[in-house]
Amino acid sequence: MVMQDVTQDEGRDAALIGLDWGSTGLRAWLIGAGGSVLSARQAPLGASVLSGDAAYAQALEQLTGDWQRARPELPLLACGMVGSQHGWREVPYLNCPADAAMLAAQMSSQMPAGAGGLRIVPGLLDEPHDGTPDVMRGEETQILGAVALHPDLADATLILPGTHSKWARLRQGHVLGFATQMTGELFALLREHSVLGRLMVDTGGEPDWNAFDEGVAAAREQGTAEGLLHQLFGVRALGLRQRLPNTGAADYLSGLLIGHELVVGVATLLPVQPLALVGDAALCHRYVEALKQFGVHDVKTLENTAPAGLWRLARELALA
Amino acid sequence: MVMQDVTQDEGRDAALIGLDWGSTGLRAWLIGAGGSVLSARQAPLGASVLSGDAAYAQALEQLTGDWQRARPELPLLACGMVGSQHGWREVPYLNCPADAAMLAAQMSSQMPAGAGGLRIVPGLLDEPHDGTPDVMRGEETQILGAVALHPDLADATLILPGTHSKWARLRQGHVLGFATQMTGELFALLREHSVLGRLMVDTGGEPDWNAFDEGVAAAREQGTAEGLLHQLFGVRALGLRQRLPNTGAADYLSGLLIGHELVVGVATLLPVQPLALVGDAALCHRYVEALKQFGVHDVKTLENTAPAGLWRLARELALA
Repeated sequence: MVMQDVTQDEGRDAALIGLDWGSTGLRAWLIGAGGSVLSARQAPLGASVLSGDAAYAQALEQLTGDWQRARPELPLLACGMVGSQHGWREVPYLNCPADAAMLAAQMSSQMPAGAGGLRIVPGLLDEPHDGTPDVMRGEETQILGAVALHPDLADATLILPGTHSKWARLRQGHVLGFATQMTGELFALLREHSVLGRLMVDTGGEPDWNAFDEGVAAAREQGTAEGLLHQLFGVRALGLRQRLPNTGAADYLSGLLIGHELVVGVATLLPVQPLALVGDAALCHRYVEALKQFGVHDVKTLENTAPAGLWRLARELALA
Repeated sequence: MVMQDVTQDEGRDAALIGLDWGSTGLRAWLIGAGGSVLSARQAPLGASVLSGDAAYAQALEQLTGDWQRARPELPLLACGMVGSQHGWREVPYLNCPADAAMLAAQMSSQMPAGAGGLRIVPGLLDEPHDGTPDVMRGEETQILGAVALHPDLADATLILPGTHSKWARLRQGHVLGFATQMTGELFALLREHSVLGRLMVDTGGEPDWNAFDEGVAAAREQGTAEGLLHQLFGVRALGLRQRLPNTGAADYLSGLLIGHELVVGVATLLPVQPLALVGDAALCHRYVEALKQFGVHDVKTLENTAPAGLWRLARELALA
């Protein structure tokens, strides 16, 4: 049997089927020996739109059925919200500090028929005695992948920008702790639904880097004294005073929010060097630009590392 | 002619027709000698839904036409977004510091036919050399009213909570400067559109004051170190860890946001005592509770003071 969208040779090389099964989307990879991606697929079949065993099994079949039938012996690993309370099967959070071996040991394979022997990666929990607790699901696997691809990141600070940006401190390959910042979600909310969004004119072209840099500078220089809630209204006041063009307002806001994230992150996490960014290239570029204002110039940027993380876990379980 | 919803005696006592004409709504008062409210009306005829002279004139007629016909000599004063760039007629912002005399001197009466001789109060601008600029329209009139009703507030800090909460510093009746915080709008956005809103169960009853107090405490104790963007995600993590009931999540968020507002406001503005709150009673109550955690116990609370402010301006112009 020839695998759809994969050459026969590649199909033969496959060692693992990996899934990043989030709230809104499902991504599937056919992964070769060494963790390379032989084929990738995605569909808007996230945990937030699925309910019940049959719906999950059907989504899995839709994206990976042909791969499974061609190579029934391939292990099937998934990370992300599929393991949450509202996912297919809940896999409890694992406490920090945690490493690949501990994550692998807590993976759940107690799945119903139709799951093809799927194993789900647990999320991570960081619950300090005197602070706000925090959780992640999916990013722990991207972190493992980043370290698998770049062993020098075993002692590092990793930033995974996104809807819920994650800052993780690593030592000797253990995730010591992490902090989530709602930067991306807040940007989207303010852009789409707030009084600020109504000012914004989208040019569809390159970001207005001047406006972005000014937003970062406002956060770095005055963010703590003025507060985010005040500086957000400043986006409007700057526009009314014609000190910010409508075409730059969205990028100023982006810089302001990322700047506030960095003010906290740099103060609390940056002592652990090196620093690497993991995620969408265009978004990571914004962080690279913003970090320059904080005196951080040497930043590695990696695109999606989840397949390498799933491969790392499969090796840990001696499945691949 | 007998005025609708006002007794003949009250109509005779009227000295001013006052309007608070905001973005979303129009409020009208028939104001007696001394600034007392004889009659009040409102309609969802704010500047954001009106366009062109005829639409504004029609809204004015709808709310005050009978009052105007019964007493054509009454002056007509309006504050709020009606004087903005997108209002009926733009009245330029007045720079801080400013007092009642300066605001009265800058009021615009260059209106088209159908405006009944309406005069519009200018907004205020605070544009520091080294910080974010800020603007208000409407609140300057509420501030004048608060001082007219309570002369000891001529040297005070006033907080006007709301969608865009305003903190104003007053000395000898002059507004020295002010800062807007987007607290109310952010709460509404997060409640209605974010991942946090989906956790929240509305009981419709009394606020969960325990949850509210915990939100304030998180902001006061860890807000600067952890940052608002991180603590927002904490609302979710606390829920997942069953440390915050779904029925308390909205009040925790309310406390967290008001707490962040207070961390900045108390640090920068509170040296100017006394402190007074002006606005919706239930919302002001939240601020009174939150301020206790900051060691502030003696806070005056005033409901809408715009009519008294409009009366103060009419007196300044010798119109009443």
